[in-house]
Amino acid sequence: MALPTIGSVRKLWNVTCFVKRFLSSEPATYTQNKENLIFSGIQPTGIPHLGNYLGAIENWITLQEHDSAVLYSIVDLHSITVPQDPSVLRQNILDMTASLIACGINPERSVLFQQSQVPEHAELGWILGCLISMPRLRHLPQWKIKSGQKNESSVGLFTYPVLQAADILLYKSTHVPVGEDQLKHLELAQDIARSFNNKYGDFFPIPRPLLSSVKKVKSLRDPLAKMSKSDPQTLATLYITDSPEDIILKIRKAVTDFTSEVTFDPERRPGVSNMVTIHAAVSGMSVEDILNQSQGLDTAHYKQVVAEAVIQKFTPIREEIQKLQTDPGYLWSILNHGTEKAKELAVPQYQHVKKLVGFY
Amino acid sequence: MALPTIGSVRKLWNVTCFVKRFLSSEPATYTQNKENLIFSGIQPTGIPHLGNYLGAIENWITLQEHDSAVLYSIVDLHSITVPQDPSVLRQNILDMTASLIACGINPERSVLFQQSQVPEHAELGWILGCLISMPRLRHLPQWKIKSGQKNESSVGLFTYPVLQAADILLYKSTHVPVGEDQLKHLELAQDIARSFNNKYGDFFPIPRPLLSSVKKVKSLRDPLAKMSKSDPQTLATLYITDSPEDIILKIRKAVTDFTSEVTFDPERRPGVSNMVTIHAAVSGMSVEDILNQSQGLDTAHYKQVVAEAVIQKFTPIREEIQKLQTDPGYLWSILNHGTEKAKELAVPQYQHVKKLVGFY
Repeated sequence: MALPTIGSVRKLWNVTCFVKRFLSSEPATYTQNKENLIFSGIQPTGIPHLGNYLGAIENWITLQEHDSAVLYSIVDLHSITVPQDPSVLRQNILDMTASLIACGINPERSVLFQQSQVPEHAELGWILGCLISMPRLRHLPQWKIKSGQKNESSVGLFTYPVLQAADILLYKSTHVPVGEDQLKHLELAQDIARSFNNKYGDFFPIPRPLLSSVKKVKSLRDPLAKMSKSDPQTLATLYITDSPEDIILKIRKAVTDFTSEVTFDPERRPGVSNMVTIHAAVSGMSVEDILNQSQGLDTAHYKQVVAEAVIQKFTPIREEIQKLQTDPGYLWSILNHGTEKAKELAVPQYQHVKKLVGFY
Repeated sequence: MALPTIGSVRKLWNVTCFVKRFLSSEPATYTQNKENLIFSGIQPTGIPHLGNYLGAIENWITLQEHDSAVLYSIVDLHSITVPQDPSVLRQNILDMTASLIACGINPERSVLFQQSQVPEHAELGWILGCLISMPRLRHLPQWKIKSGQKNESSVGLFTYPVLQAADILLYKSTHVPVGEDQLKHLELAQDIARSFNNKYGDFFPIPRPLLSSVKKVKSLRDPLAKMSKSDPQTLATLYITDSPEDIILKIRKAVTDFTSEVTFDPERRPGVSNMVTIHAAVSGMSVEDILNQSQGLDTAHYKQVVAEAVIQKFTPIREEIQKLQTDPGYLWSILNHGTEKAKELAVPQYQHVKKLVGFY
């Protein structure tokens, strides 16, 4: 599979910058086009942390500024592949919605919707599951990792890549922003699209990856691990709604090393390099500019600079989220509006699929 | 699990008789009740053969005469777990519909509908798949048999018992007519209902089996094998639309043995016993009466009697099917009518499920 690669562009510290360069420099693999349809999903994990924001959301905001149609789904059907408390899940759906809007997702420019409200996702998922073999699914690396951790994994956790394929294909999506860990799943969606087309005639475009976010934000307590919501150490994870005091505390306590100088060397100095990564990401500055500007600062003082940049970036977002959280009715209405728009696309496509399969 | 058993009633050659006795003699396990809801599904395999008719359809007709609500679904989503040709599938859906109506399914007394037209089946199937573990599904005997036959089985073939559970639970069904080979799948549906109730509060009734059809019609060419549509020997299977000439030919050529007397001994004389089983089933006579009446007949002459009984039973049904087949629009309208009625039940139940799960 030919992936749109980044060529000589090596220092992609800013997702916005990355996407822009990618869009403009790779006409052979991605041309902005009104015929394109970009689909992406995010799990309703509640308030996003910095890793979620920089890994996906910022990218989404950039993509919606282009002419292509963009669909962003809060994939609640995927979230229940692991146990969820219903009231927490409900709140998490609202919090994620508020966060996406506050971060800049514009429900008039993109279709922001809740997966479980569009029945055709599960319906198409069933049909596609009949086109793919068990060994093909069993060999996916994510399943091997997840089922290895827990012998009693649910059937949903096993079959969710098929539902992902349905999410993408239902809208005849042409491009899907993916992290590298999801590439194998997009390949599965491509294979399923080809199987369907072979059996029923050319129907689905083969969706192509938009490789996003080459940087990973690390845990503040263990700079070798990914920043994660499930980290048991409360100081490890920066949320986009953290108060200025919490941001200052978490960054002050962030694990670095015993060298006071500010350098960028993720291999040998992962802690301070994570600070630089975060700083670059939230400020939009290049790593070079940051390093130049930080000459002479020790890490303790540099952390104050980073904390300040994070506070500056997220204060307006936090305030907007808090305002939106006071009005759940408005948030549901945004989702319902998006769901209606998603259905306008999904219903005729799925009707067509049912006809091709022979259901009527 | 306490199964409704048949007690001392041993000779159940007639399904109607069986169901009637069962309904009246087992008040502890099944009491006719307006609160009861009976669900059953049949795959759209086209024109039913005698085994389908006696194993399921005749039972359905009896059940719809009682006060309990009955839902009969043409389960086209299940049919695609193995490869299907779309135009053949479409015709098979119509032929099955025509056959069910001609056999006596009354769309005003029962809800006769097409599974794929009610999105909530696939939707609930997804949710239920998140409540059941992979090992639980892998250990089902049907999967072991089916996947053993073919290494490349589809994901749909693996997960179809979960969709079956959704079919049943979606309507809060209380009773499900099942053959013994499907008992393990009903147990799975029961387990899933309990898991859901444990997690989300008491919602689903635990569906109970109505053990149906203790007799099996055997292949006319190999009385040790089940009568089957997929039998490569065209003379092995009697279809309910076979012409009188075909019925006479198939029964005349049916494998029996070199004893000319008519006796009933399925172990040692499976061929002639299969004739007696068929005769009893289509005529409504008991095996005893048949044996008394057939004294002095050799098997060749007895076969003529059996063929005549089969012709008499199925001639009006065949004629009605042929009439219905000329009007596909009418058949679709019957299915659409049933689908509307099924949706009236399914939509509010599934809305409630979504609320319990935390989707809104």
